[in-house]
Amino acid sequence: MDNFIYHNYTEIVFGKGTEQQVGELTAKLGKKVLLHYGGGSIKKFGLYDRVVTALQAAGVDFIELGGVQPNPRLSLVREGISLCRREGVDCVLAVGGGSAIDSAKAIAMGVPYDGDVWDFFGANRKAAPKTVLPIGVVLTIPAAGSETSNNSVITNEDGWMKCGGSSPMVRPQFAILNPELTYTLPFSETANGVADMLAHVLERYFADTEAADFTDRLCEAAMRSILYLGPQVKRDPDNYNIRANLMWAGCSAHGGYLGVGRGTRKGREGDWGSHAIEHPLSAHYGIAHGAGLAIMFPAWMKYVYRAHLPRFVQFAQRVFDVDLPMEDPDAIVLEGIRRLEAFFKQMDLPVRLSEVGIDDAKFVEIAEQIAPVGMFHKLEQEDIIAVYRLAL
Amino acid sequence: MDNFIYHNYTEIVFGKGTEQQVGELTAKLGKKVLLHYGGGSIKKFGLYDRVVTALQAAGVDFIELGGVQPNPRLSLVREGISLCRREGVDCVLAVGGGSAIDSAKAIAMGVPYDGDVWDFFGANRKAAPKTVLPIGVVLTIPAAGSETSNNSVITNEDGWMKCGGSSPMVRPQFAILNPELTYTLPFSETANGVADMLAHVLERYFADTEAADFTDRLCEAAMRSILYLGPQVKRDPDNYNIRANLMWAGCSAHGGYLGVGRGTRKGREGDWGSHAIEHPLSAHYGIAHGAGLAIMFPAWMKYVYRAHLPRFVQFAQRVFDVDLPMEDPDAIVLEGIRRLEAFFKQMDLPVRLSEVGIDDAKFVEIAEQIAPVGMFHKLEQEDIIAVYRLAL
Repeated sequence: MDNFIYHNYTEIVFGKGTEQQVGELTAKLGKKVLLHYGGGSIKKFGLYDRVVTALQAAGVDFIELGGVQPNPRLSLVREGISLCRREGVDCVLAVGGGSAIDSAKAIAMGVPYDGDVWDFFGANRKAAPKTVLPIGVVLTIPAAGSETSNNSVITNEDGWMKCGGSSPMVRPQFAILNPELTYTLPFSETANGVADMLAHVLERYFADTEAADFTDRLCEAAMRSILYLGPQVKRDPDNYNIRANLMWAGCSAHGGYLGVGRGTRKGREGDWGSHAIEHPLSAHYGIAHGAGLAIMFPAWMKYVYRAHLPRFVQFAQRVFDVDLPMEDPDAIVLEGIRRLEAFFKQMDLPVRLSEVGIDDAKFVEIAEQIAPVGMFHKLEQEDIIAVYRLAL
Repeated sequence: MDNFIYHNYTEIVFGKGTEQQVGELTAKLGKKVLLHYGGGSIKKFGLYDRVVTALQAAGVDFIELGGVQPNPRLSLVREGISLCRREGVDCVLAVGGGSAIDSAKAIAMGVPYDGDVWDFFGANRKAAPKTVLPIGVVLTIPAAGSETSNNSVITNEDGWMKCGGSSPMVRPQFAILNPELTYTLPFSETANGVADMLAHVLERYFADTEAADFTDRLCEAAMRSILYLGPQVKRDPDNYNIRANLMWAGCSAHGGYLGVGRGTRKGREGDWGSHAIEHPLSAHYGIAHGAGLAIMFPAWMKYVYRAHLPRFVQFAQRVFDVDLPMEDPDAIVLEGIRRLEAFFKQMDLPVRLSEVGIDDAKFVEIAEQIAPVGMFHKLEQEDIIAVYRLAL
């Protein structure tokens, strides 16, 4: 078990009707807030009006910036930074899913910084934030876990680089999670979210630290719960309890609790190779991040498992109840991966690149751009290409 | 699943050598700290010297108050409050286990309060703290989970009332957890800690909220890990990884994460009847809290399980792998309870009051004093007496 620091200070306000508290919670953050959101859905379903009413009732001055796209873009982040500086904004409120939150975090990092905000992003970051504007969140999509996480993923349109930036300071001060807000999500978005949260646990589970039994078991329990909840929400999308458990699962999966003591001696929890391999796909081809993970994680597993056989056997046995004879551990692992793919298919997610119209045209270029990836299993350029080929 | 607020802001600094950071962390809390601890063990094993050296190196002014006893006493809390006021102390550092931390929390609540600190304790508390001194912790015993919890348990020598007081403000600002510090614990203290942490999960697991699947599974995973770790630490007490997992299990068991969404609509997570039934035993008879829980929890289960059969069947099946035929659910539950008792026995813990020399002399008096108890299963005076009798 590795040394670690765990400091997730986000106040999580969870449950029915909790968005009504956004005014009083935001009032604690500052005097003038940037209300940051995506497309029209929060207006269509009335959430926008409720948030504005709550802010006004609490006497919070605000300006707004909508238009956050999936795979949120650097250009809008820069626009937000300029706007906040011009208007004297001192805190940011994201209303939406992971994209709105990640964009809000990048703005919060950029406003007090003299240089360019992109300095904080990418594998070879030029700088770390010294101070950030405080951030609040009203979450509408259970998926990314950005509502309490310490990082943000932004796409730079110049070269379509999709990169992460992290800092202990970008965890939101509060996160409001009302599962009722997720009833209106199309199933495909819910399914993408399920793949994303499962991947967040998987990335932490596959780490090169032995003997982190407590964290292992929490991860396995979290994955089993997500595997149970996914098909339930497909069958019964208006079931509050299923929606609520799924929303809490998405938050937990990326808040850090499920990664403590495992892989933390290298400064971050887990592997993150599959995320690194997926990011250029969603950046270049515009596929959903969750769909890309459903394709790439099984391929990654097939490529790396032989080097970590006991760990993958434990995964197949404890998470997927594979009870094949121990005399053939490869068969146990491959059955586990098969069940993972079967789960994604049940969620109507793709499990091959061909299903989303991606061929091998950019494999070499992308692999060169991102290599090496992975903390648990390091993949060089040729390995990354091989993983992409396994996913065709 | 219930609405909840989860806000555990404690910075957890975990791992080898981490007590070296106590100076810089304490310096952030205030200008003058009360160093609060128990008996001689922290001096005997050199921890006291290392803490003092770190405080001095960070330029932190301090005074000290030792002498905290197991089942920490109100008289020492009052002495600490007077001392802090007289000396202008503005923060408290506990070095020790749950008793030192609980005593430090009570002092931190009492110093800025005009009335008597006992107002904050007991089922019918007279007041809630409006402000508390910031608290830091160096943990030496994995057990109580007080290092990140929102409560404190103090014994009032006037009547030997052992009562809890809770507030969102008494979570420590930081908690240093170095598993190496636990090597020197006698096995009996480790075993008491194991019983205590298991009980903290059990209290949260048995709550009257349905459909909290994610939290359920995390609780089950945590219990399975504790059941695995307990006998390991008996066999191999100097194994760092076992000690580390156990320390993190104890912290997690009472930090609140394993209770979210379950029973929280009544303002606290879980049942807590077994704790309420145990507290007077340790207060009156001086037995260890963990030992008392090992006796009382199985008795409580035997008394209440028929009213909650599906929940107890799930417990027996998922936590203890009981695979008896479903046609006799009582047999499944009773086998689960039998395995729980067998685990406590394996840890050299008592499972009957007669083993610790307690007879039925005070049952009526105690039951009258504490009734009713339990949020999941309410027990009146006669029920409490019946549970005590089952434990004879």
